[in-house]
Amino acid sequence: MAAKEKSFKPKARLPRGFRDRLGAEIVAEREMLARISAVYEAWGFDPLETPALEYTDALGKFLPDIDRPNEGVFSLQDDDEQWMSLRYDLTAPLARYVAENYDALPKPFRRYAVGPVWRNEKPGPGRFREFTQCDADTVGAPAPYADAEICMMFSEALKAAIGGAVAKNAKAPDFVIRVSNRKIVDGLFEKLALTGEETAKTRLTVMRSMDKFDRLGERGVGLLLGPGRKDESGDFTKGAGLDDARIQTVLSFLQSSAGAGTDNPVLSLDRMQNIVAGTSAGDAGLEELYGIRKAIPDFDARSIYFDCAIIRGLEYYTGPVFEAEFRSNESGASLGSLGGGGRYDGLVQRFKGVEVPAVGVSIGISRLAAAFELGAGAGARGPVVVLAFEPEQMTAYQQMAAELRGAGLRAEVYVGGSGMKAQLKYADKRGSPVAVIQGSDEREKGEVTIKDLVLGAEMSKSIGDNQEWRAGQPAQVSVPQEKLVETVKSVLARKR
Amino acid sequence: MAAKEKSFKPKARLPRGFRDRLGAEIVAEREMLARISAVYEAWGFDPLETPALEYTDALGKFLPDIDRPNEGVFSLQDDDEQWMSLRYDLTAPLARYVAENYDALPKPFRRYAVGPVWRNEKPGPGRFREFTQCDADTVGAPAPYADAEICMMFSEALKAAIGGAVAKNAKAPDFVIRVSNRKIVDGLFEKLALTGEETAKTRLTVMRSMDKFDRLGERGVGLLLGPGRKDESGDFTKGAGLDDARIQTVLSFLQSSAGAGTDNPVLSLDRMQNIVAGTSAGDAGLEELYGIRKAIPDFDARSIYFDCAIIRGLEYYTGPVFEAEFRSNESGASLGSLGGGGRYDGLVQRFKGVEVPAVGVSIGISRLAAAFELGAGAGARGPVVVLAFEPEQMTAYQQMAAELRGAGLRAEVYVGGSGMKAQLKYADKRGSPVAVIQGSDEREKGEVTIKDLVLGAEMSKSIGDNQEWRAGQPAQVSVPQEKLVETVKSVLARKR
Repeated sequence: MAAKEKSFKPKARLPRGFRDRLGAEIVAEREMLARISAVYEAWGFDPLETPALEYTDALGKFLPDIDRPNEGVFSLQDDDEQWMSLRYDLTAPLARYVAENYDALPKPFRRYAVGPVWRNEKPGPGRFREFTQCDADTVGAPAPYADAEICMMFSEALKAAIGGAVAKNAKAPDFVIRVSNRKIVDGLFEKLALTGEETAKTRLTVMRSMDKFDRLGERGVGLLLGPGRKDESGDFTKGAGLDDARIQTVLSFLQSSAGAGTDNPVLSLDRMQNIVAGTSAGDAGLEELYGIRKAIPDFDARSIYFDCAIIRGLEYYTGPVFEAEFRSNESGASLGSLGGGGRYDGLVQRFKGVEVPAVGVSIGISRLAAAFELGAGAGARGPVVVLAFEPEQMTAYQQMAAELRGAGLRAEVYVGGSGMKAQLKYADKRGSPVAVIQGSDEREKGEVTIKDLVLGAEMSKSIGDNQEWRAGQPAQVSVPQEKLVETVKSVLARKR
Repeated sequence: MAAKEKSFKPKARLPRGFRDRLGAEIVAEREMLARISAVYEAWGFDPLETPALEYTDALGKFLPDIDRPNEGVFSLQDDDEQWMSLRYDLTAPLARYVAENYDALPKPFRRYAVGPVWRNEKPGPGRFREFTQCDADTVGAPAPYADAEICMMFSEALKAAIGGAVAKNAKAPDFVIRVSNRKIVDGLFEKLALTGEETAKTRLTVMRSMDKFDRLGERGVGLLLGPGRKDESGDFTKGAGLDDARIQTVLSFLQSSAGAGTDNPVLSLDRMQNIVAGTSAGDAGLEELYGIRKAIPDFDARSIYFDCAIIRGLEYYTGPVFEAEFRSNESGASLGSLGGGGRYDGLVQRFKGVEVPAVGVSIGISRLAAAFELGAGAGARGPVVVLAFEPEQMTAYQQMAAELRGAGLRAEVYVGGSGMKAQLKYADKRGSPVAVIQGSDEREKGEVTIKDLVLGAEMSKSIGDNQEWRAGQPAQVSVPQEKLVETVKSVLARKR
């Protein structure tokens, strides 16, 4: 083998758009997933695991993002020539699972799922082709009670995830859940006389324009709804071609959203009623949203707002839509999406030809974990390192490490082949708070030396006089070996 | 979309060789992974996550199984025409990661990894194309101390995983870790005068024959080492063509394994010495194994045995080899592998052209989890179901469920649209232990009815007189609503 390998030396490189993660970030994300899963389980949802690969035809094209190219999945051909694809979300595999096992499942069927999904997209900064989702769905229950329940549980799951973590800075963002309904936008289209197949393209343009309200404001969206808009770079975007009266209707619809931070999170619902009431879709949508409001016992404590300016995902969902986002505690501005969901009664229609009602949410765990870090937990701090000098003493070193682990600490023996200096450098690179040293001197006296690596690093910076520093060695202490655990613990206690 | 979809209705089906898993099995596996990860972390190993896809050339062909076909991976081409493959283990991505980040990493580099791997193999019963591995590796530390440490930690991880679980039956299997060394088999080949490139094929045949010792015994393996062997079906397997003296040497080598269950787990090392001592590879291998023995403080308590009949994986590893398996507590017979590992100093050689010492283990979590199940834990038991009859009372039902969850129980409100009978059937299918019922009668009296579904099912089987059963209703009780939690808890307490 060696001879063959010599001829070709591949470059070690991460594939485009993927990433490696080490240590604390993984531990933080794992703890958040555990907290979210615990909430889902407490609400009666069971975990379901489906494979990473599905048959491409069974996966379908069922993505919520209307801008997605059709070729957005990773696909490969099996031995028997059937095409398989890596799942792009956890909902398409759920649809396949439900359709395949329909008769045997309890109805409603409640499952949650946690796992990686893959998107064959152009990678960009912070835009990865593999990420983790954490979904919960109820299949087989009509609106609005299952929707209300998913909404409440979504709020609790986010609270649990954030509650167990410590924000990276003092101005920790809070979250809000914005709730809308596709049918209300359909009601708006009725008002605008934009129904039927022949105006489908115009509806799409109107929705894309509305989706830019946060960024472009009234004037920009007005242009996009009408004649079109030239941006700063001079690029021209064709408009929807609506007349002024209809543009005004759309703009007042968008303004009817009361937004987060108002005293009454239902206010925008009442305002919206003025616009879409009387349309058949609008009335149905309003009824579902009022139904959700009524079925949530402690509505006001849950950071839930009705906001009909939500557009993303409406192509995909068939009824209520939820969207969670971080909000700045200072300005109230949105700091990015945390996930969302809604009702999609077409879930298994592709397979079975009948509508099965379904509603669910998906939490984008990476965004959540990135904003917070764990206060405690293994992996967040490097291990205590027992330095190793004499091969014959390896058993003794291992016994010290075992003693420390027995007391609930992370601890390891240095098993590389290098000397004192390299070993301390190793401990430093690992983020170790403490090194344990027993050279032959200490061993003869039955002692161990405990070195506070954090304090040591600080002092070596601040003390100018090297001589004085060496004499004092305030960052280390020698104690009888039976005081090993006690001493290490007291040094660690100083760090919190 | 609806119009287009009608023309093609895909069949909902799981891809060949993959599986879905629901509920308790996932919870059991997840808890085992958490326990194993906690041990790895306590020993100073940090979690590393690499992507599912790697560049095919970086992945290489580095599988431990000599029988594997080259095309055993799932591969696809990226937009830029580079080939990517789903990882077939967690070691090849580690090699890529270490080679890519070599200078920045602390040395030794200690990482653990948990995640799915994929094998493009012919599926068979119990043989899946996607499964979970749980690895720990030390890169950059020479034998034998890192090997001894991995071996100890392996034993502790298995103990922790099994210790937290309840066996599916009373005759719970135990595990042993068998340790060998590739160099000792190389020493045997020196004795047999089978060294050099021209006898590589014969060595492979000899090793494959030795690997069948458990199954075919002395006579069968003797034939495979010599002229060849005809099996029961009449199929002939060509032999290695060794003469009688050399066949005898191999057979005594295999018999020198003392096996598990002997009083002295080092015994076989001493026996082996009689055969390979004096060969250069054999002496080096024996020294490493005695070194491992010496560096493990409480060797006798760790179920570690030296057993030089281990052959699988020797093509891959370069030094010590570990293999863990379940053993029947009654017969001592092996009940299948739990994973294994060893030293593979060629880890990053493919990329960097230099040897970097490395040693690790991999635990096959599915086998472990399949043999055990969780005694407790969410997900192992269905939720308490609050039945729902009156839409206007949905808030009240949700409040009851919230109260139960607040007391640490799994609880949900029935959100489907069906009546009493269907709701009880639903609770039954979910494995719910208890149903909570509040019809208008109960509500007016301020009461709730708690129905013991487990007892109910038992009694409905044993009581013949339907009339008597209905009159008594011993499986349900009505209590004032403020006693809801207390009463449900007391019913659940009867189940343990």
